[in-house]
Amino acid sequence: MSIFEGFLSTPEVLDAFSDHHFVDAMLRFEAALARAQAQVGLIPESAAHSIIGSCKVELFDVAKILRDSGRAGSVAIPLVKSLKEAVGVFNADAVPFVHFGSTSQDVIDSAMALVTRDAVQLIEADLGKAIEALLQHAKTHAQTPVLARTLMQPASVTSFGLKCANWAAPLVRSRARIAVAARHALKLQLGGAVGTLAQMKGQGAAVRERVAQALGLADAGNAWHTQRDEWVALGCELAIAVGSLGKIATDVALMGQYEVGELTEPTEPGRGGSSAMPHKRNPVASMVALAASQRVPQRVAALLATMPQQHERALGAWQAELAEWPQLLISTHGSVRAMASALPGLQVDAARMRANIDHLRAELPREAADEWFDPALARSAGELALAQVDALRASAAATPPNKESRQ
Amino acid sequence: MSIFEGFLSTPEVLDAFSDHHFVDAMLRFEAALARAQAQVGLIPESAAHSIIGSCKVELFDVAKILRDSGRAGSVAIPLVKSLKEAVGVFNADAVPFVHFGSTSQDVIDSAMALVTRDAVQLIEADLGKAIEALLQHAKTHAQTPVLARTLMQPASVTSFGLKCANWAAPLVRSRARIAVAARHALKLQLGGAVGTLAQMKGQGAAVRERVAQALGLADAGNAWHTQRDEWVALGCELAIAVGSLGKIATDVALMGQYEVGELTEPTEPGRGGSSAMPHKRNPVASMVALAASQRVPQRVAALLATMPQQHERALGAWQAELAEWPQLLISTHGSVRAMASALPGLQVDAARMRANIDHLRAELPREAADEWFDPALARSAGELALAQVDALRASAAATPPNKESRQ
Amino acid sequence: MSIFEGFLSTPEVLDAFSDHHFVDAMLRFEAALARAQAQVGLIPESAAHSIIGSCKVELFDVAKILRDSGRAGSVAIPLVKSLKEAVGVFNADAVPFVHFGSTSQDVIDSAMALVTRDAVQLIEADLGKAIEALLQHAKTHAQTPVLARTLMQPASVTSFGLKCANWAAPLVRSRARIAVAARHALKLQLGGAVGTLAQMKGQGAAVRERVAQALGLADAGNAWHTQRDEWVALGCELAIAVGSLGKIATDVALMGQYEVGELTEPTEPGRGGSSAMPHKRNPVASMVALAASQRVPQRVAALLATMPQQHERALGAWQAELAEWPQLLISTHGSVRAMASALPGLQVDAARMRANIDHLRAELPREAADEWFDPALARSAGELALAQVDALRASAAATPPNKESRQ
Amino acid sequence: MSIFEGFLSTPEVLDAFSDHHFVDAMLRFEAALARAQAQVGLIPESAAHSIIGSCKVELFDVAKILRDSGRAGSVAIPLVKSLKEAVGVFNADAVPFVHFGSTSQDVIDSAMALVTRDAVQLIEADLGKAIEALLQHAKTHAQTPVLARTLMQPASVTSFGLKCANWAAPLVRSRARIAVAARHALKLQLGGAVGTLAQMKGQGAAVRERVAQALGLADAGNAWHTQRDEWVALGCELAIAVGSLGKIATDVALMGQYEVGELTEPTEPGRGGSSAMPHKRNPVASMVALAASQRVPQRVAALLATMPQQHERALGAWQAELAEWPQLLISTHGSVRAMASALPGLQVDAARMRANIDHLRAELPREAADEWFDPALARSAGELALAQVDALRASAAATPPNKESRQ
Repeated sequence: MSIFEGFLSTPEVLDAFSDHHFVDAMLRFEAALARAQAQVGLIPESAAHSIIGSCKVELFDVAKILRDSGRAGSVAIPLVKSLKEAVGVFNADAVPFVHFGSTSQDVIDSAMALVTRDAVQLIEADLGKAIEALLQHAKTHAQTPVLARTLMQPASVTSFGLKCANWAAPLVRSRARIAVAARHALKLQLGGAVGTLAQMKGQGAAVRERVAQALGLADAGNAWHTQRDEWVALGCELAIAVGSLGKIATDVALMGQYEVGELTEPTEPGRGGSSAMPHKRNPVASMVALAASQRVPQRVAALLATMPQQHERALGAWQAELAEWPQLLISTHGSVRAMASALPGLQVDAARMRANIDHLRAELPREAADEWFDPALARSAGELALAQVDALRASAAATPPNKESRQ
Repeated sequence: MSIFEGFLSTPEVLDAFSDHHFVDAMLRFEAALARAQAQVGLIPESAAHSIIGSCKVELFDVAKILRDSGRAGSVAIPLVKSLKEAVGVFNADAVPFVHFGSTSQDVIDSAMALVTRDAVQLIEADLGKAIEALLQHAKTHAQTPVLARTLMQPASVTSFGLKCANWAAPLVRSRARIAVAARHALKLQLGGAVGTLAQMKGQGAAVRERVAQALGLADAGNAWHTQRDEWVALGCELAIAVGSLGKIATDVALMGQYEVGELTEPTEPGRGGSSAMPHKRNPVASMVALAASQRVPQRVAALLATMPQQHERALGAWQAELAEWPQLLISTHGSVRAMASALPGLQVDAARMRANIDHLRAELPREAADEWFDPALARSAGELALAQVDALRASAAATPPNKESRQ
Repeated sequence: MSIFEGFLSTPEVLDAFSDHHFVDAMLRFEAALARAQAQVGLIPESAAHSIIGSCKVELFDVAKILRDSGRAGSVAIPLVKSLKEAVGVFNADAVPFVHFGSTSQDVIDSAMALVTRDAVQLIEADLGKAIEALLQHAKTHAQTPVLARTLMQPASVTSFGLKCANWAAPLVRSRARIAVAARHALKLQLGGAVGTLAQMKGQGAAVRERVAQALGLADAGNAWHTQRDEWVALGCELAIAVGSLGKIATDVALMGQYEVGELTEPTEPGRGGSSAMPHKRNPVASMVALAASQRVPQRVAALLATMPQQHERALGAWQAELAEWPQLLISTHGSVRAMASALPGLQVDAARMRANIDHLRAELPREAADEWFDPALARSAGELALAQVDALRASAAATPPNKESRQ
Repeated sequence: MSIFEGFLSTPEVLDAFSDHHFVDAMLRFEAALARAQAQVGLIPESAAHSIIGSCKVELFDVAKILRDSGRAGSVAIPLVKSLKEAVGVFNADAVPFVHFGSTSQDVIDSAMALVTRDAVQLIEADLGKAIEALLQHAKTHAQTPVLARTLMQPASVTSFGLKCANWAAPLVRSRARIAVAARHALKLQLGGAVGTLAQMKGQGAAVRERVAQALGLADAGNAWHTQRDEWVALGCELAIAVGSLGKIATDVALMGQYEVGELTEPTEPGRGGSSAMPHKRNPVASMVALAASQRVPQRVAALLATMPQQHERALGAWQAELAEWPQLLISTHGSVRAMASALPGLQVDAARMRANIDHLRAELPREAADEWFDPALARSAGELALAQVDALRASAAATPPNKESRQ
C-alpha cells in the first residue's frame, strides 16, 4: 500500500497482497490449469510442460504488467500476453494453449483466493494470540474489582477478569466463524468466458477438480463469477472481528486515560512516542484497532453494494470489489496484530481500579455505595469469568485446526 | 415506517416492527421475567401474578410511551414506569418487583430478538418461494439458448436455465446461512445493570434459562450488552441475501429492456403503471429489490461501525444500532417478497432470446459465430443447470426446517 | 418513524416528514401546477378552480394512499388517482387536467423539497442556538485552564474557552454552507414524463417559473430527475454538521466521565435516568448526537451510491434515495436539537479542570510540568479564543438571514 | 497503490500520492517552517539555513521512513528523526530547531494539502475536458431523436443533445463547487502540540501566515486538528462529481449494449479487449467510472464517520481519515480521466437511435405512437439542449480560473 497505510497494517499482510505475490499466484493458477488440461488430454503434454516451465514470477516484469493493466482494463490481459511471449520463445506451438478455455476473472479470482488464504492464516494466528492473552488476564484478574460503566458513567462493580472474558468471547466465536467462512470462500474460480467451460469440451469439471486440488482451493462445482455470496460472507466475518477488536481498543483507550489510569499498553522502544512531547506515551495499538474499526465497515458496504453484478460477468462492480478486498484484509490484520501484540503485556493497575471505586463510594450515600459499588461484587463476577473462560477454551478446542480447516 | 418506505417494504414486516408489537414483546419479556423470578423464589408469587396480569399491551398507551421515550432517552424507562403504575393499581406491594434486577437494554434487546424472529420467518418463507420459482424455471428452460453477456456485451451462448440455477444457488446458501445465524443471534438478553445479574443473588443463571425457555429464545449463557458479533452476523447474512436478490433484479431489468425483450415481470392490475404514460409497464419488483440492494449495505456498515461499544453498555452506539436494525430487516423482506412474487410468473420469451442470438450471428464472421454463438452451446449449459438444480434441491432438503432451526 | 427512532429525533422534524404533511405538500404542488397552467392558458380556468378546490389534505384518506402505494410502486399514483376522483365528483371535465403534463417524480421531488425546507429551518434555528451557547462559554471561560489531550492522553494545557470556540467554528461554517446548499437544492422539480415538458406545448418554462414562485422554491431552469448533485450536496452539508456535533458530544462525554469530572450535561427532570440505577445520570444529549454521527455517514453513502441513475428517470436508485433522505434530516435535527438544548446549561467545573492539571503536574519532573502543564498556558489560549469568537460572530453576521437565503 | 488499483486510477494521480512526493511535501513544510521561524526571530538564521539545506527528498531513505512508521505509529516521527540526523551531520546546533513548535499532525496534514492540491488540479483539468466534449456533443446532436427511457423502459422521445447537456450540467456545477471547496480545504495546518502554538511565544500567527504564504496554502487563522469540516466538504464534492460521472457511465453502458447499439466508446489499440474472446469490445471507460461510483461513497462515509475526533488530536479517527483520503482522490481522478478520454471520441449512431424509435412505434397503437414517440419531439428537446449549453458555458466562464482560485 502506501505511506498512509504503513502504520495501520503489517509488513506480512502487505507482502501477501504485493504485486509480486499476486502475479506469482496468477502464474500458479496458469501452471495448474495447463497441467490439469494435459492430464485430461485437452492440451498436449509438451505444451503444458512449456507453460509450466514459464510460470515463474522471476521471469516477468511485474511493473510493466501493472502499467499495461491500465490501458487493458484488467491485469490478466498483460499477464497472459507476457506469458504467451515467454512460452513462445521456446515453444511456439504451446502458445495457443496458454490460459486455454479460461477467462481473466478465472485467473484473478483464483489468485485472489490464494493470497487471501495467506492473509487469513496471518489473521487466524494473531487472533489466537489475542484470545490466549485475554483468557490469561481473565483468570489472573477473575476477582479484581473494577468499576462497571454504562453510558460512560460508573454503574456498579464488576471484575476485570469478566471484562477480559467478555472481550475474548466474540474473538473465539469469530475465529470459528472465519474458519467456516474461509472453507467456503477460498474456492477455485474456473468457468471460462461465460461460466460454462464450453471450450473444455465436456472436460471442464475434471479440469476444475484437478486445478482445485493442485492449488489447495475448494472446488465449488460451478463458476461463481457473479455469485459472490460466499466471498462476501468471509469479508463480513473479518469485519465483525475488527468490530470486536475495536470494542477492546475502545475500552483499553478509555481505561488508559490519565484520569482513569487502570490500564497501560505495554511500552516498547520507539513505539507510541510523540514528535513534540517527550512525556507522552500514546496507546498506539488501540489507535490501530480503532482506525480499522472505522474503515472496515465501509469496505463491507462496498462489497455488499457490488453484489448485483450484471449477467455472466460484471462491468465495474467486480473490478470495484477486487480493489476493496485487499484493503479489508490488510486493515483486519493490522487490527488483529496490534491487539495480539499489546494484550499479552497489558499493564493492569488493580490498585487504581480499586481506588477509583473507593473514591466514588466516598461520594455516595452509604446505601447506594453498598448496593452498587461494593468491591465484593467482583466475586460473583469472577465466577462468571472463570466459567466463561472454561467454556471458551472448550469451544476453541472444538474448532478444527486452521490448516486443515480449509483443505 | 413512512410514506417513503411503504412501497419498498411489506405490510407484514412493517407490522412485525410496529410500535404495538414491540411494546407487546417488551411486556412478554417482563412477564416471563417475573414468572421465572417467582419460580426460583426471588420475588413473591403474588407479585409475579400481578405483574403478569398487567403485561397486556392493550392496557398501555403506546403513543404516550413513545412520546416519553424522547425525554427519557430510552423507550424502556417509560414502559417500566407505566407497568409499575398499572401493577400498583391493584397490588402496591408488587411494584418493586417489576423489571427486578434487569436493565433497559435487557428488555429492549430481548424484545428486538422476538420481533426479529417474526421478521426472519417472513424472510425465510419468501426466500423459499423465490428459490422454488427459480428451480422450476431452471428445469423448464434448462436448454433454452440465451446470450451470455459479460461487461455488458454479448460474449457467448448459455442457457436460460443455467442463469436461473445461478440465480438460485446463492439464495439456497443464504437460506441455510440465515438459519444458522438466526439460531445464534436470536438469544435472550439478560444481564442486569452491568451484565452480572448481581441483584439476582446467585439465581441469575436459573432465571435466564427459564426466561429464555419461556420466550423461545436461545440462552447465550451470558449477557451480550456490548458483544454484538452474533447479532451483527445475522444482519450481514440478510444483507448478502439482498445482494444476491439485487443481482437477479439487475439481470431481470436488463433482460426486460424493450430492445432486449427476453423477460417481463408478470402483469398485475394496478402494478407497474405510470402516472403519466399509459403505455408504460415498469418492472416494479426489480425496482424494489434494486432499491434494497443500494440501501442495505449501508445498514450493515452502520451495524459494524457501532460494534466498538464502550464498557458494559454503550453511549450512542447501541442506540444507533437499535434504530438501524429494523430498517435492515424491513428492506430485506421488501426485497425478498418482491422477487418471490414476481419470479413465479416471470414471462420468458425464448423466441426473442433465440432471435437476439441469431441477429448477432448474422453480423459476425462465420467462424466467430460458430465458436462463440452457436445455439447448441445451450445444451451443455443445460446439463450444468440440471445438475445444479439437483444439488441445490439436495442442499435445501438438508437444511433443517425453519421453526426448529431456532429453538 | 418508529419506536426505535423516537428518542433520537424530535417531534417537530418527525412531523415535518409525516405522511400527512407530505401528502399536503404533494397537493400544494398539484394546486400550484393547475393554477399556473390556467394562467398561461394550458388548461381551462374552471378546471384549475376545481382542482385547487380539491387539493386539501383533509379530504384525502392518507392511510389508504399509503397502502395503495405498495402495489403501485409509487405514492404519486394513488394520490393522483384520489385527486382525480375528488375532482370528478363536482367537475368531471376537469379530471383530465389533474397532474397535467407532469410525472410522479415531479410531484414527489417537489413535495420533498417543500417538507425538507421546513426541516432545514428547524436545523438552522437549533444550530444557531448551539453556536450562541458555545460562543458564550468561549467568552466566559476564555482563560479557564484545562488539560489539552491528544491521542487520549494529556498533552499540555489549553483553555476551555478555546475548546468551545473550536467546537463553535465548524458549526458557524456549516450554517453558512447549509444556507448556500439549501438555496441550490430546494428547487422545483417539473419535467414531465421525460424531462422535456413536451405536453406543455412550449409553455413549460412559463409554468415552471410560476409554480416555483408560488411554492417558494428555486426554478432550476431544467428538470433534475437524474441530476441529483445539488440535492445530494445539501445532504452532505447536513452530515458534516452532524460530524461536527458528534465531535462536541465526544468531548463532552469524555470530559463528563466520573474520573474526569470537568463537564456535566444540564439536569432536567425525567431525562438521563436509568431504569435500574437511581444514582446514574446519563449524558443523554451526547448520546443522541453520537448516535446520529454513526448513522448519518451511511445515509450520505447511500445518497452518493444512488447518483448513477439510469437515463431520464431511474429504476430503484431514485426510490432508494427517497427513502434515505428523510432519515438523514431527521437524525440531523435530532443531533442539533440535543446539543442546542444541552449546551446552554452545560455545567463547567473549572476547579476540577484545574485539579486535573495540578494532579498531573505533581507526578511529572518539574521541567516537563512547567513546559507543558503550566496553567498560565491558558492565557494565550484565551486570546486565541476571544479572537476566534469575534471572527465567528462577524462571520455569522455576514451570513444572510435564513428565510431570505432560500427565496 | 497496488495491482488491484492500477487499472482504476491513473499514473499521474498515483504519482501525486506516492511515498516520494509525500515525503517531499513534508520536507517542504519543514523548510518553510524553519524559514518563517528564522524570519520572525524564533530560531537562528544559521539553524534555518542548515534545516532548509537538508530538506531535500533525495537525501532521505523513503522506504526506511515508511518501515519505521509502523512501529512509531506515525510517519512524521521517523521523518523528523531522519531530518534531525541529516541536519546534525553538519550543524549539531541546529538540531533542536528542526520541526520546532510543531507536531506530527501539522506536517502530515499540510503535506496532504500540498499533494491534494496537485490531485485536484488533475481532476479539474480532466473535468474540463469531459465537459467540453459533452457540450460539443450537445450542440452536434441537439436535435437527434433518441428514446427517452424511464424505469428502464422507453417512455417517450428526447434528443441526444439534451441527454448530453444533462450529463454536462452537474459536472459544470461540480467544477465550480470543487473550486470553492478546495479554496477552503487546502489550508496550512500549524497548531503545535495542542493547537495553541504555545512554543512559538506569541509569534505563532506570524509564522503561520508566512508558512502558508510560502507553500501557497490558505491560512485558516487557527489549527484545524480536530475540526475537519472543510476538508471533508472537499471530499464530499469530489464524490458528488464521481456520482455524476457514474450516471454518464451508466447511460453509456446501457446505450452501448449490443441490442441497443446507440453508443460505442472510442476504440483504441490494446483497450477493452478480452483475454478469451477476440470479438469482444468492452466499455472500459464506463467500467472505471462505474467502479469509482461504487467505491467512493464508502470513502465519504469513512471521512464523515471519523469526524468526531477526540479533544485536541484524535486517537484512530484521524489516522483512519488519512488512509482513506488518498483513495478518494485516486478513484476520483480515475473516473474523471476515463470519461475525459472516452467522451470526445464517443461514437454516436444516430441512425440506430432513430431505428429504435421506429421499431417501437411500429408496435404501438397509432395514437400512443404519435403522442409519445414522434421523432419530432426531439426538436423542442433540442431547443432546451441549446439553451442549456449556452447557460452552462456562461456559468463555466464565470468560474474563476483554477490556479488563482486556490491561492
